[in-house]
Amino acid sequence: MLPRGRPRALGAALLLLLLLVVGFFLFGRDPECERRSWAGEEGTLCDRCLLTPRVFSDGLGTTATLDGDPYGSRNRSTSSLQLLLPPKCEMLHVAIVCAGYNSSREIITLMKSVLFYRKNPLHLHLITDAVARNILETLFRTWMVPAVVVSFYDAEELKPLVSWIPNKHYSGLYGLMKLVLPSVLPLSLARVIVLDTDVTFSSDIMELWALFGHFSDKQVVGLVENQSDWYLGNLWKNHRPWPALGRGFNTGVILLWLDRLQQIGWEQMWKLTAKRELLTLTATSLADQDIFNAVIKEHPELVHPLPCVWNVQLSDHTLAERCYLEAADLKVIHWNSPKKLRVKNKHAEFFRDLHLTFLGFDGKLLCRELFGCPNQFPPGAEQLQQALAQLDEEEPCFEFRQQQLTVHRVHITFLSHQPPPPRPHDVTLVAQLSMDRLQMLEALCRHWRGPMSLALYLTDAEAQQFLRFVETSPVLSARKDVAYHVVYRDGPLYPVNQLRNVALAQALTPYVFLSDIDFLPAYSLYDYLRASIEQLALGRRQRKAALVVPAFETLHYRFSFPNSKAELLTLLDAGSLHTFRYHEWPQGHASTDYTRWREAQAPYQVQWSADYEPYVVVPRDCPRYDPRFVGFGWNKVAHIIELDAQEYEFLVLPEAFSIHLPHAPSLDISRFRSSPTYRDCLQALKEEFHQDLSRRYGSAALKYLTALQQSRSRA
Amino acid sequence: MLPRGRPRALGAALLLLLLLVVGFFLFGRDPECERRSWAGEEGTLCDRCLLTPRVFSDGLGTTATLDGDPYGSRNRSTSSLQLLLPPKCEMLHVAIVCAGYNSSREIITLMKSVLFYRKNPLHLHLITDAVARNILETLFRTWMVPAVVVSFYDAEELKPLVSWIPNKHYSGLYGLMKLVLPSVLPLSLARVIVLDTDVTFSSDIMELWALFGHFSDKQVVGLVENQSDWYLGNLWKNHRPWPALGRGFNTGVILLWLDRLQQIGWEQMWKLTAKRELLTLTATSLADQDIFNAVIKEHPELVHPLPCVWNVQLSDHTLAERCYLEAADLKVIHWNSPKKLRVKNKHAEFFRDLHLTFLGFDGKLLCRELFGCPNQFPPGAEQLQQALAQLDEEEPCFEFRQQQLTVHRVHITFLSHQPPPPRPHDVTLVAQLSMDRLQMLEALCRHWRGPMSLALYLTDAEAQQFLRFVETSPVLSARKDVAYHVVYRDGPLYPVNQLRNVALAQALTPYVFLSDIDFLPAYSLYDYLRASIEQLALGRRQRKAALVVPAFETLHYRFSFPNSKAELLTLLDAGSLHTFRYHEWPQGHASTDYTRWREAQAPYQVQWSADYEPYVVVPRDCPRYDPRFVGFGWNKVAHIIELDAQEYEFLVLPEAFSIHLPHAPSLDISRFRSSPTYRDCLQALKEEFHQDLSRRYGSAALKYLTALQQSRSRA
Repeated sequence: MLPRGRPRALGAALLLLLLLVVGFFLFGRDPECERRSWAGEEGTLCDRCLLTPRVFSDGLGTTATLDGDPYGSRNRSTSSLQLLLPPKCEMLHVAIVCAGYNSSREIITLMKSVLFYRKNPLHLHLITDAVARNILETLFRTWMVPAVVVSFYDAEELKPLVSWIPNKHYSGLYGLMKLVLPSVLPLSLARVIVLDTDVTFSSDIMELWALFGHFSDKQVVGLVENQSDWYLGNLWKNHRPWPALGRGFNTGVILLWLDRLQQIGWEQMWKLTAKRELLTLTATSLADQDIFNAVIKEHPELVHPLPCVWNVQLSDHTLAERCYLEAADLKVIHWNSPKKLRVKNKHAEFFRDLHLTFLGFDGKLLCRELFGCPNQFPPGAEQLQQALAQLDEEEPCFEFRQQQLTVHRVHITFLSHQPPPPRPHDVTLVAQLSMDRLQMLEALCRHWRGPMSLALYLTDAEAQQFLRFVETSPVLSARKDVAYHVVYRDGPLYPVNQLRNVALAQALTPYVFLSDIDFLPAYSLYDYLRASIEQLALGRRQRKAALVVPAFETLHYRFSFPNSKAELLTLLDAGSLHTFRYHEWPQGHASTDYTRWREAQAPYQVQWSADYEPYVVVPRDCPRYDPRFVGFGWNKVAHIIELDAQEYEFLVLPEAFSIHLPHAPSLDISRFRSSPTYRDCLQALKEEFHQDLSRRYGSAALKYLTALQQSRSRA
Repeated sequence: MLPRGRPRALGAALLLLLLLVVGFFLFGRDPECERRSWAGEEGTLCDRCLLTPRVFSDGLGTTATLDGDPYGSRNRSTSSLQLLLPPKCEMLHVAIVCAGYNSSREIITLMKSVLFYRKNPLHLHLITDAVARNILETLFRTWMVPAVVVSFYDAEELKPLVSWIPNKHYSGLYGLMKLVLPSVLPLSLARVIVLDTDVTFSSDIMELWALFGHFSDKQVVGLVENQSDWYLGNLWKNHRPWPALGRGFNTGVILLWLDRLQQIGWEQMWKLTAKRELLTLTATSLADQDIFNAVIKEHPELVHPLPCVWNVQLSDHTLAERCYLEAADLKVIHWNSPKKLRVKNKHAEFFRDLHLTFLGFDGKLLCRELFGCPNQFPPGAEQLQQALAQLDEEEPCFEFRQQQLTVHRVHITFLSHQPPPPRPHDVTLVAQLSMDRLQMLEALCRHWRGPMSLALYLTDAEAQQFLRFVETSPVLSARKDVAYHVVYRDGPLYPVNQLRNVALAQALTPYVFLSDIDFLPAYSLYDYLRASIEQLALGRRQRKAALVVPAFETLHYRFSFPNSKAELLTLLDAGSLHTFRYHEWPQGHASTDYTRWREAQAPYQVQWSADYEPYVVVPRDCPRYDPRFVGFGWNKVAHIIELDAQEYEFLVLPEAFSIHLPHAPSLDISRFRSSPTYRDCLQALKEEFHQDLSRRYGSAALKYLTALQQSRSRA
């Protein structure tokens, strides 16, 4: 078919070979030049820098001429790289040390920037503490990005390996762990890119990986020169940095040639150097970076200097500006100032915009498949795709079916959180909300002094707004016992029960109060519930009980919250308060028996009746909410049926109450209330729920079906 | 400084020259090959395709081998392009025909994708109808993207040039206008990229521009082959497409070599062809594309076939899949099915995600400067930057100052809109809102049957949610007399008066009712206001009057709206209604004199008093709101003072009323109500406002200052 192709192909191959040879001759490393350059001699600009033609600036051979740039010589070494790119579908390995809540958020923004540009499968090796592992395991499992594998390594186990090193850097022990990666990562792993969590990519990580191809046989670690004068010393009196070659190197981005490091006895090497330096220096100032630099000072042949664009450092006194001439030059931005985004810099706004782009980027849009790469789908993803593909778009309840199948990306404990100390009668308030209920949080915090587990249904951009909202609220930022779990929006229907289940699963106390975000509990409720649990000896007798918190509502917008049951009853009698949904949906709380409650002095048992949906306190291991109920309607009713079917007894607490505040109907409600299809689909869901119920509980579930049929015949 | 550089630089230059020469020889055009290829001969794969090494796939020489791909030969012609890239800072020209509301939205998403990847200054040549011009002029003026120049050309003037061509395509006359671009664009313009509004870039447009460098001397138009069998004919009985070479070419992306087109007498050429074809064909089916193809069939030497990745066509029966092997290959995606994003396609989800990325992309983040390019800032941008830079970040009211200076990107008439017919007494309801008040819109539409001009403060992503909200609401989508103007969020404080001014400036009737979004007007208000305006002969006598619509409020969440003044008075007496903010801020409406209003049968005049802030009907040319009031507080008060200072008489209408519905405090309110700094800054704003007032109105403004001082001494 292609007879005329061959001679030309041969010609092209020859040309390429020629290019390679001449390129090597022209652009190859010049050890003398390099040494002078990274030794920090100002004005040393190696020749090959000037030889780079201006090629496509998103490509490999970019970065313009930088007169007097001390990093220049290294910036240019990429231009002959085009032939060394990894083959399509080759797995690239990335290792990141990550601990705590804030770093877990950072790493996600970093990963979004990597995923946006990447074209290769990635294997992430995450060295995490328990907090980060918990967060990131859930996140990646629910994110379902094709062609991304994640492995976790326990940072706890690595602590003894580095804890003997005194360290003043804010990253603490975790920063030092980069030193021990060669002994921690699997032996089968030959090379790995190591990243700090505070970097942002603006290019394809494959290009960085390709730089391994430029290592000489002896080079084991690729690093960008440090873009500040720190290691030159004398920044202030008695400023005595660790030894380094010239300005030294920055370890925010590292290419590690792992098997070679093993071969040269890296572990002994860095330990020896560190111990020797620590004889005269009291501690590391910049964690692993000081030690990497001290080793390199001693063994300069080990380092492969990387182009500075692969680690543009935005510290306070950065010299990064010398590194790039245009935006296209930038490959990786490193927010290595403790001021992070607030750092001052000539192009700070540009960098911030790039970072903000990924901060608010919809992570779902990054679930792009890599065309033509095999086995890229994470566990469950293909089945999910198939199930979704089998849905009939023309079916009236299509949106419901689709929403039920949707796996939402979940970021548990989005903000710093202090788990409650283990207490046998403690209760966590569990609720869910979206952006339009954020203003309830402060009041809720004032009313409920105990732990809370709240699921928030947000877009990525809203999650950032939420973060700022909490940071600027003295009430909210003071509370470390409130855990916020972000469930990312996806689809047109509100996944109310999936949200409740996320919040419920993350509650850490033995009991949970299953509430709704527009209710304010009595000020005394938290203490009262704990006392009741203790008095009723729920824990000890393994009594299966659901404690009912009677629900009220005010239709008045301005309203003075009752401080006691007596005050509440007065307001009730005055008509300022009503029992909840008394006018529209009395059956929802009828079983609570408000008349009896008025007089009650002790908890009393009530029986389930159709459509009962009280707010209850139950053990944390209670049944989950049925996730088929998306949108609005019947989502709590089904849960209460489940409790009843599992023989929980409903005990109404005589001093407990909670009051619903008025609010505009949420967008999701108003959008569907008016739709007849919506109501039909809800009916279909109810029927399916009852079929499942019969399957699981047999004839015991008959009463629920009867109740449903009765209510349908009434309708 | 660089003595060793020169000989090597010389060597490199020689190498490049060699590359160029050999590259031209190897990769240069082969007319025989090309003709066979675009003549649609299956399996003709030209040699140079195979010669392309797999280079960086975001770069120029990408796209993998496609066996049997009829476009293959063209896909590959880019690999030797690296030397032909435009120099840094070279201006690239882009022409787009755009008419109507929907295309104006489309073009913005297209531009976001272009701006995200671009590294060169751009000059946009927009051929627009009045609607699109109005929208896009405002948008680009307020967007202030560095290094983007926009010129407008009146499509109306071009209509006679193409209206003689019968056309069945949905783009109507506007599609045909691409034919006359060579005679419309400035003579000084040698080359231009022409784009349809329904394309999305996933690469740097500079790479597309660079393809001009591959034109032979005779080639004048660059096009991608059509990726369907349309022009092959016989798709159904009597399917008779216009003549084309093989599959023909698609005109969604065109490289036009304008001066050459002038030279070859393009205008005569296409007209001649079109007229001749129209002797046998009744009309064009695909607008300009049919005519371009007919001309090319006759003069194949004019076309330069472009790699198919520059116009990946997602029509229903697309063959586009043959064009790319991996995502990185894709350069421009063309949504050329009337189904747009809902089109079915193997990789539809991938394409949709890319499009959605830019749909919701924060346009502000694209205001990135091009490092090192001169004169890139649009009018006013540099002064604005300087003013912002001069603000003191440590000053307590810094956020206020910053917010006041912020120029918000404004998209007027975001959705389809039918301007009201000119009527001398017509009134437009003017209000502003953010996402958390969207649920008010349906009720507002039921209460106010006249035109409305509403400013919405949204993020780009929220604007898309809003679009879907309106589309799925039968009430809202039926109303074409409601103009929605999107003002894009930027900064922490709510720019309430800037929003009001946007809505006010876009009102098209002689009178405006300046309302707030949480008020529902009496059902009769629209008719009553028009009658009152007529009766009071406001227009004729040039009487400067502000008609006061008395304001009430309900604190009850569920509430039955009064159908008449009598019903309202009953509710008022029953305590279900109150005069607005009677409890917290009685001075706001005290001057309205509700006692007199109860009995009034005719309009009565009232005098201004301190803090008066009634809702009024005024002529459209009334004073604007003072934009210094950002956040909440005093924003309406200042406007009423301005009206009083300009000697508007306040006439209270006896049958008019409007009722405030309860709602949760907005996030913006709750965030700042509690802050003492906020109140201090508001006080400072008030004082500055009064200083300006004295400056403008002299001693007449004294009474306002006195009132302010009295209120301060009371506080």
